[in-house]
Amino acid sequence: METAFLQWLLPQLKSHPRMAIGPGDDAAVLRWQTGRGVVVTCDTLTDGVDFELEKCDPRLVGRKALAVNLSDLAAMAARPVAAFVSIVAPREGGLELTKRIYEGLLPLAEEFDLAIAGGDTNTWDGRFVIGITAIGKEHPRGSLTRSGAKPGDVILVTGEFGGSILGRHFSCVPRVREAVYLRDNFELHAATDVSDGLSLDLWHIAQSSGCGAVIETARVPVAEAARQLSLRGSGKSPLEHALSDGEDFELILAVPPQEADRICSDPSLLVPVTRIGRFVESPGLWLADADDRQQPLEPRGWQH
Amino acid sequence: METAFLQWLLPQLKSHPRMAIGPGDDAAVLRWQTGRGVVVTCDTLTDGVDFELEKCDPRLVGRKALAVNLSDLAAMAARPVAAFVSIVAPREGGLELTKRIYEGLLPLAEEFDLAIAGGDTNTWDGRFVIGITAIGKEHPRGSLTRSGAKPGDVILVTGEFGGSILGRHFSCVPRVREAVYLRDNFELHAATDVSDGLSLDLWHIAQSSGCGAVIETARVPVAEAARQLSLRGSGKSPLEHALSDGEDFELILAVPPQEADRICSDPSLLVPVTRIGRFVESPGLWLADADDRQQPLEPRGWQH
Repeated sequence: METAFLQWLLPQLKSHPRMAIGPGDDAAVLRWQTGRGVVVTCDTLTDGVDFELEKCDPRLVGRKALAVNLSDLAAMAARPVAAFVSIVAPREGGLELTKRIYEGLLPLAEEFDLAIAGGDTNTWDGRFVIGITAIGKEHPRGSLTRSGAKPGDVILVTGEFGGSILGRHFSCVPRVREAVYLRDNFELHAATDVSDGLSLDLWHIAQSSGCGAVIETARVPVAEAARQLSLRGSGKSPLEHALSDGEDFELILAVPPQEADRICSDPSLLVPVTRIGRFVESPGLWLADADDRQQPLEPRGWQH
Repeated sequence: METAFLQWLLPQLKSHPRMAIGPGDDAAVLRWQTGRGVVVTCDTLTDGVDFELEKCDPRLVGRKALAVNLSDLAAMAARPVAAFVSIVAPREGGLELTKRIYEGLLPLAEEFDLAIAGGDTNTWDGRFVIGITAIGKEHPRGSLTRSGAKPGDVILVTGEFGGSILGRHFSCVPRVREAVYLRDNFELHAATDVSDGLSLDLWHIAQSSGCGAVIETARVPVAEAARQLSLRGSGKSPLEHALSDGEDFELILAVPPQEADRICSDPSLLVPVTRIGRFVESPGLWLADADDRQQPLEPRGWQH
């Protein structure tokens, strides 16, 4: 529903002098007259859609709810400052459940030096809902949007893709430190984080930047979990899982070629960074084999 | 559940150099090294608890969801800048419902020159949930908290109280302009907005400020709707409704006596401002009759 809704909403929204970046990127940026921009993102997760409280530890849910928001700040290269946690809990057992949720969330907040600065808690007869608003400080070099990729830029990704449903969607570490480090030290053109799916999120960058992208099949870092899903008879190849599963919460970056070389040989980066293709003039998305034979790729992933 | 939860949570939260005001007031204030503070508040409303979508126009719900957040910014004397709207809608008819919600919300955003800067929309099998995070710019004289009331201060309130359930909870105008004007022109010690109930919210100021408060019964501006509820056999007096119904979204202010005189005779204020009592040394809440005979008052209102 989100896509259809945004098509209705966005044309109605006016520009606003304080809104440097509005809806449509990983986060919004508000700017006061003086000082750094305020980067804001929010994501809501619901029981039965994003997790099943009957089947998992609520602490993992709390951790994930915060992690997905930090991942959005990372995609803007913002430094997380504070989070606001809104909870709607079932009346029955809501207090204990909410405490468990926080027990998962607080250590991650501490790890990223984040203040839990507010929020609200409510009870009702329905299932559990958690919405978090995370606020960050804009990078001194400005925010890293989805719209700056240029033809010729290299596509870099952190980490591995596919099969996150087997557990990685709960344990992922948002790439905040990597994003800030990369923004500090390299020229980057665009970024997003992979929540919907590698091909779909790459498509978001290409679309926003008015260009296309070619993924070199052999270079995609496919996670072991993607192979496992495939072996268990998912009906998809490991590569298909990597391209479309989503919830990897890794970064996709658009980077000029010489910078990509420098990044890939930087020994300070503790997370693997892989070159998986390039941005091109013609709009669209392609898969290329080792001989650069290309076939169109349908962007796939989670549709809200 | 909220009170019990906060008792568990607050001792665990650390102070944070960027968090000038944390959880527990009407909004949080984040401060960058330079520039004005960022004032943030969030409130979530749910179908079946805060409204009944089967019985009311969704546009009123959208308007209310934004209004309650603006009311919290007003209580800090902050100037609203942007709002982020998170929606969880039933799968069936969710898109149309969400559009109606926004049709109620957008005109209010425009009235207060507020950017709708982001949010997210989700669908599920449950009932409708709307959570809004509103962000404001701190007043140049700083934020108006709940904790600055002093014995001897006059209790001022805007507007009227009680019976808002008959319609005013949907149509209330958040007192943003009044709060900023008052902060610009007068010395104010503390403020909050009335969401839970006049006596309970006044009690929040008294508790936070380490003092007590005496309400002069005859001075409380009782809304016509409170009288109607009483006449219809609610079993409560109009005054009881005024003191405990909540959702009036008016301001309670703690103001030094000479400033209270100036405020009450200021012809620029288009909203009635009424002196309803005073803050006193001894902690507690009292009702006083015309001869200043006092009886203890139990703070009453909406318990989350």
